[in-house]
Amino acid sequence: MDSTVLAGDGAAVKWWGWGARDKGFRLEDHPGLVAYLKARLETGLQEESLPVSIDRISMPPARLDRHLLEGLRKIVGDSGWGADKLQRLVHSMGKSYRDTVRIRRGEVPLAPDAVVYPGSEEEVRRVLEWAGEHEIAVVPFGGGTSVVGGVEALGGPRHRGVVSLDARRLCRILAVDELSRTATIQAGILGPSLEEGLNRKGLTLGHFPQSFQYSTLGGWIATRSAGQQSTLYGKIEDLVLSLRMIHPGGVLDTLKVPARAAGPDWNQVVTGSEGIFGVISEATVRIRPVPVRKRYGGFFFRDFPKGVEACREFLQSGLVPATVRLSDAQETEFGMNLRPRSGNWKKQVVEHSGVWALEKLGYRPGRRCLMIVGFEGDEAATESAWKRARKICDDFGGFSLGGGPGRMWYQDRFEHPYLRDTLLDKRVLIDTLETAATWTNVTPLYEAVRQKLEEAIRGTGVPGIVMAHLSHCYATGSSLYFIFLARQTPGQELEQWWAIKEAASDCLLSHGGTISHHHGVGIDHARWAQQEHGPSAMRGLSGLKLSLDPGGIMNPGKILPLD
Amino acid sequence: MDSTVLAGDGAAVKWWGWGARDKGFRLEDHPGLVAYLKARLETGLQEESLPVSIDRISMPPARLDRHLLEGLRKIVGDSGWGADKLQRLVHSMGKSYRDTVRIRRGEVPLAPDAVVYPGSEEEVRRVLEWAGEHEIAVVPFGGGTSVVGGVEALGGPRHRGVVSLDARRLCRILAVDELSRTATIQAGILGPSLEEGLNRKGLTLGHFPQSFQYSTLGGWIATRSAGQQSTLYGKIEDLVLSLRMIHPGGVLDTLKVPARAAGPDWNQVVTGSEGIFGVISEATVRIRPVPVRKRYGGFFFRDFPKGVEACREFLQSGLVPATVRLSDAQETEFGMNLRPRSGNWKKQVVEHSGVWALEKLGYRPGRRCLMIVGFEGDEAATESAWKRARKICDDFGGFSLGGGPGRMWYQDRFEHPYLRDTLLDKRVLIDTLETAATWTNVTPLYEAVRQKLEEAIRGTGVPGIVMAHLSHCYATGSSLYFIFLARQTPGQELEQWWAIKEAASDCLLSHGGTISHHHGVGIDHARWAQQEHGPSAMRGLSGLKLSLDPGGIMNPGKILPLD
Repeated sequence: MDSTVLAGDGAAVKWWGWGARDKGFRLEDHPGLVAYLKARLETGLQEESLPVSIDRISMPPARLDRHLLEGLRKIVGDSGWGADKLQRLVHSMGKSYRDTVRIRRGEVPLAPDAVVYPGSEEEVRRVLEWAGEHEIAVVPFGGGTSVVGGVEALGGPRHRGVVSLDARRLCRILAVDELSRTATIQAGILGPSLEEGLNRKGLTLGHFPQSFQYSTLGGWIATRSAGQQSTLYGKIEDLVLSLRMIHPGGVLDTLKVPARAAGPDWNQVVTGSEGIFGVISEATVRIRPVPVRKRYGGFFFRDFPKGVEACREFLQSGLVPATVRLSDAQETEFGMNLRPRSGNWKKQVVEHSGVWALEKLGYRPGRRCLMIVGFEGDEAATESAWKRARKICDDFGGFSLGGGPGRMWYQDRFEHPYLRDTLLDKRVLIDTLETAATWTNVTPLYEAVRQKLEEAIRGTGVPGIVMAHLSHCYATGSSLYFIFLARQTPGQELEQWWAIKEAASDCLLSHGGTISHHHGVGIDHARWAQQEHGPSAMRGLSGLKLSLDPGGIMNPGKILPLD
Repeated sequence: MDSTVLAGDGAAVKWWGWGARDKGFRLEDHPGLVAYLKARLETGLQEESLPVSIDRISMPPARLDRHLLEGLRKIVGDSGWGADKLQRLVHSMGKSYRDTVRIRRGEVPLAPDAVVYPGSEEEVRRVLEWAGEHEIAVVPFGGGTSVVGGVEALGGPRHRGVVSLDARRLCRILAVDELSRTATIQAGILGPSLEEGLNRKGLTLGHFPQSFQYSTLGGWIATRSAGQQSTLYGKIEDLVLSLRMIHPGGVLDTLKVPARAAGPDWNQVVTGSEGIFGVISEATVRIRPVPVRKRYGGFFFRDFPKGVEACREFLQSGLVPATVRLSDAQETEFGMNLRPRSGNWKKQVVEHSGVWALEKLGYRPGRRCLMIVGFEGDEAATESAWKRARKICDDFGGFSLGGGPGRMWYQDRFEHPYLRDTLLDKRVLIDTLETAATWTNVTPLYEAVRQKLEEAIRGTGVPGIVMAHLSHCYATGSSLYFIFLARQTPGQELEQWWAIKEAASDCLLSHGGTISHHHGVGIDHARWAQQEHGPSAMRGLSGLKLSLDPGGIMNPGKILPLD
């Protein structure tokens, strides 16, 4: 039916890391990167630290007795559930740095007692009923790509067990209304299936988060995901016209209308609720024609603030790029070192002389910043927008690098997560964090967080690399995305990581940023989300939780603390 | 400081009807309308039924004793509250048909026991604390223009009294961040003050509901209001970047960031909450430069479906008009009869020959539909959009009427509510209702509701006029706005009106429409809002209410039923 890889399918995806088993990042193809990392991180990249074999992983024993499992089997049938080691393992946690370090070590402190794959909304309803009766926690599982602990198989002290509710069988496109440009789609569908189904009718959702290949519509909605082209298409909360959530004892269904004034917006209550109220089973989303033309290009700016000004001017002048992505000087340098070795010596000579000329023009390494900007739409509008963007870049001293950097970024845009596994093999920490701020606050926040990350890494006794980019631009501001690398502190890998993450997260909030623009809250961000929202919103959230999930079985410990 | 008229100021505004005391609609200036109404409603328009004088109104006695009032006075000072007849009267209800009929008769079954005008957030907080201690209901009051019973001075059986909390003194623009295009503004500010303040810096919010002159930022947010230019600027829920709501026992404050993924969106919980959780005290809104150019024009379409197709094509082709407003054949005819008498006979002759020529081209009365479309922005973008819009109109058989109809609509756009008072003087019922639907459903819903309204009016024993327009367009659908007129059934004015409204509201819901696109819920729509949301959302809303307003003092009986 489609070319997607089921994220929870242990035979096809890595239980020990990111994505498909047959894909990876080979350092051998990137000699520039190797040299750069050796110099900056002061490591020979010699040590190897590989994931343990699955046989060496001891998981907590499954706690559901025969009677309980029989109840589950009656609802979903023999093929609708499983409890073998691989299934439990791939549903035990997500894909955060913490998760990957733990699983590679063979540390799986929590695992679902069973995994259930309901084939219909009625089965979801009955599974929740069964779980409620027996006080079993239910962890909704879409693609399992959470980087904040959102799918961790966590139960509370009163729970007799935990099941992971994998939505993979709810994966159909139910209806496409071409006239109204909406599609009603089951929530367990993976990104590629969704796009292939819509593309066959010349339509697209336009939602391409970095996890696109392994994440689901329901997961996107649960976490308020942002696609890499969200500046044009909107974040997922802008794309949801209506949705259905099955919660213990009921179904919350919103009306399929473009807008309304009938009380608070329940779409926006469920979007971002991370499974703590119920299971999102389907959504009606806003769709568009597949763009006839995509034009992506790259520009150099002499420094980060100039690039930021150009991004702001794009949005405030009414331009709607699909993507604007401005790397800071560190990320620009990293990106140049990341490029694979070119076998073509002529190309290398031309490149070298180009780089030399650029330096003479004031685009100096250590200061210059790469912007990728792309437009999508019909031929005429795309070309006209491109011209206006180019003019704005000119005004802020941007130097056009042509279409090459844009094409390269576009082509590799889902591949970067594979780098983490390779670096972990070499005992190198790499993680990311992201936030958003109004334009007035973008540069101060960027400076503060970058400094704090550098300081925190130094505090763990090693040199680090800290880089960032601005992306997902709005007329009022932008998101900021940070990436940091350091040699791991042997035996203290998680403590080292958390010390850095904690310092940076405190810094985000104290400088007016949000703890997350699109990764979500889960377990890892809960403390800061609670601080960001304040006691009133948290009291409201608890009230909502109590109304919709009175037994407290839905994804306990996420966003809200364990009772 | 500004040119606004305070809506709750009984000396300046009509307590018995719409708007400023010195404004009104004079039938004498509209002979065409008089003839049209006489023929269609079978009335001589002879009978007069004027509002009673204020002396003849007997209101329920104020229930707050000296001790309680002394507590209030300690919080807000002598000038911060009042309980005289006029103040209590103008805060007793809103501006719905039901309200106006009752108040003109001198029927004021409920009135606040006192009106309080807090001068700071701290005073709001203390008033809520005082009200909680003494079990007094608090009805937040902005401009008092609700047409759904949203500000009715209703208390529950346990309440010892009701105070109307008038936000007029919270009316300052606190900060304008030109770089981020945001402004932080107190919620009690009236439309004209807000725009004048921003305009002085070359900026605008662009939110112009029909009530603009008499309604407030806080009221817009509480009711999910839509401005007449919402297609460009967005509904109020799109304009709110962050807000502050003071509720009993706390303050809910959202972060000033363009977007985030840290749990559900509290802006969208408070927006549309109609004061049932607390008092919105300020908001940070998205602002824009004042448009350099506004171009509005009119087109005739041969029938409604052709016009609807053109509207859809505007939005789906990526055009962003400020306003698109397509009248059906009945409203088109009504509008032509509404135009004031022209003293210029030459102009009349030209008009008549123009109308004759149009009929020959197939734009026949009873079928032809007027579209007003307008663009706002910089010179070049507006002109280019106008050309594209004109081409789309051509494609669907639209006939350009030039700029005249657009200018006339724009100039009169806040005046139409005055017509109601004049018609009530002549014993003619006029009311409106509004909804929204996806494009697939727009025409079927329109037909169903129009037929139901006609049938329901006939059911009350009189002929009626039913007309509608489509406005506030989206890529996925549009809102629909209905206006209906009939001779009043003497002595049964409210029963007649409710029979019609009830039938139409049932019809809206059974045909997939929402009970409100921008008027809100209040008391009048509560039954249908509950039906539209279903038991799960209503359970969640009750849970939220209990968390944020555990004593149940905030605007009881609105959206949710009285305990």
